[in-house]
Amino acid sequence: MRSNSQIVLVSHPQGMVKKSDMTLQTTPLPHHLPEGHILVEIAYISLDPAIRGWLNPGTTYIKGVQIGEVVRTFSAGKVIESQNPNYQTGEYVWGLLGAQQYALHDGQGLVKADLSKGPLSWHLGILGMPGMTAYFGLLEKGQPKAGETVLISGAAGIVGTTVGQIAKRKGCRVVGIAGGAAKCQFLTEQMGFDAAIDYKNEDVLAAIQRTCPNKVDIFYDNVGGDILDAALAHLALGARVVLCGSISQYNSTDPRGPKNYMKIVTARGYITGIIVFDYINRYAEGMADIGQWLAAGQMAVQEDIDEGLENFPSTLLKLYTGENFGKLLLKI
Amino acid sequence: MRSNSQIVLVSHPQGMVKKSDMTLQTTPLPHHLPEGHILVEIAYISLDPAIRGWLNPGTTYIKGVQIGEVVRTFSAGKVIESQNPNYQTGEYVWGLLGAQQYALHDGQGLVKADLSKGPLSWHLGILGMPGMTAYFGLLEKGQPKAGETVLISGAAGIVGTTVGQIAKRKGCRVVGIAGGAAKCQFLTEQMGFDAAIDYKNEDVLAAIQRTCPNKVDIFYDNVGGDILDAALAHLALGARVVLCGSISQYNSTDPRGPKNYMKIVTARGYITGIIVFDYINRYAEGMADIGQWLAAGQMAVQEDIDEGLENFPSTLLKLYTGENFGKLLLKI
Repeated sequence: MRSNSQIVLVSHPQGMVKKSDMTLQTTPLPHHLPEGHILVEIAYISLDPAIRGWLNPGTTYIKGVQIGEVVRTFSAGKVIESQNPNYQTGEYVWGLLGAQQYALHDGQGLVKADLSKGPLSWHLGILGMPGMTAYFGLLEKGQPKAGETVLISGAAGIVGTTVGQIAKRKGCRVVGIAGGAAKCQFLTEQMGFDAAIDYKNEDVLAAIQRTCPNKVDIFYDNVGGDILDAALAHLALGARVVLCGSISQYNSTDPRGPKNYMKIVTARGYITGIIVFDYINRYAEGMADIGQWLAAGQMAVQEDIDEGLENFPSTLLKLYTGENFGKLLLKI
Repeated sequence: MRSNSQIVLVSHPQGMVKKSDMTLQTTPLPHHLPEGHILVEIAYISLDPAIRGWLNPGTTYIKGVQIGEVVRTFSAGKVIESQNPNYQTGEYVWGLLGAQQYALHDGQGLVKADLSKGPLSWHLGILGMPGMTAYFGLLEKGQPKAGETVLISGAAGIVGTTVGQIAKRKGCRVVGIAGGAAKCQFLTEQMGFDAAIDYKNEDVLAAIQRTCPNKVDIFYDNVGGDILDAALAHLALGARVVLCGSISQYNSTDPRGPKNYMKIVTARGYITGIIVFDYINRYAEGMADIGQWLAAGQMAVQEDIDEGLENFPSTLLKLYTGENFGKLLLKI
């Protein structure tokens, strides 16, 4: 009898997610795959901010994870058995394969990882969902023009660094907001940002005013809360605010909105958002561009890789406390 | 010596505006007009929600009124003297002429009132700034399509009723939110709205869900606060939120933002706003359309007219307590 290790949800988190909201369980795997299915041996699990929202019981753009279900994650691995003509044994894939050792899957919505573009782990980061979120969020929703100023919150994360590096390719001035001097130094010295703001040690609004003398044309927000309010207070005429996430609010039992929201009116701008799943038919386009920039050495990747499925809950917590440095992954 | 009566600002309001923030003063008028100037005898002063923001000291889209200055208002009257070749004695004009008996003005930014389209008071309402705010906010920013659902807050005000009536002309389902049974009945029986929600006596979110079975394609917001949050919670895919005002927050010392703001992301919509001054070169277009609908009896007007310049402060307060019923004006 083959068995599988899985992280399953025990309780919907109240406020900050706790390790005890999840447990590790062992379940049997079938000897024979159902028709049309594949078995994927997972190599990497991606820890992404969106996971917190998926652990709520309700449905937003996607159904919440139910008690007893495997925790939803993007994961990547190798197809080790296939009863699906679209997949060959030995191919690498990524998608919503969950926090588990093996995934039995019908193949729908999975993406094949082209390892000539970068190692498998990158396909959960800059070449995967976070990279596509950055690419389509910035280019389609933000519509950057050369010479404009792009401000990014949660800038040291994988989405933030990718947005910033793409914006530099498009000729923009790029300013990132991150927590701590080390992350700020990383942004300016390794990721090519023009300036960085340490929200833990600076007055954010004053720092935005100082580093964005022509105001903010595009604000790409991963954070929400006070940082969103500060950015709204310094928008240029015609500004675009691209909402990607609101990590400062995900674990709050009393989430709050941006009190400066009417500033979008005086800026004659708009607030919109990015849902990466809407662009699934155009991922190839994003991957081709980013792959080319990576191959030319024009973009850099920083990863933060933990090991062991049993450590999934504690690794996930690092994300919400801001302890990670680069794309957070769990290696199985 | 000729004299003028004026309402001038005594103190910038803290929180809710008070009568004592303003005073009535008498000032001399020159015997001879300066070159290029006109003298307007004001007949009507318009009480508009935006006045509260103008009484703050800072600059937003327009400079705040300073202590000792005449309170900024849209007013309408007759040109009684002219040293400006663009204006003839006897013509009627409207614009930012202030809360006073006479306005000495250089003519810049004033609009001539064509009384063949409607009485002078209408030029401060449906044919004036509020009408243009409704027209360009709905049509340019909201982009309504026939069959869509348009939800309007502050619906019984002049902007709200005009938005609703234009949306009906465009084939939309129109739902208004207002305070009290009388205003709701007025919306459905006299203004042609399909449904009305009494925010003082109903659970607003439940009422939106009941009256907007296909969800909300356009939310035209004059109010902010809890009502904005309720509307955000029931947006259709591709929704447009047009921010016109946030009257629930204008007199608050602790304004708050919409905690449901991330709903615009899952709706794949956008939040934007309307500043009517941006359309000054296109007012003729809006006035022609609205004038035609009025002439054809396809739109109705409701006015609430007080009398006497000395009553300006108390009439202004009616606006923020929601006591007015229809376009609030002061007749001089």
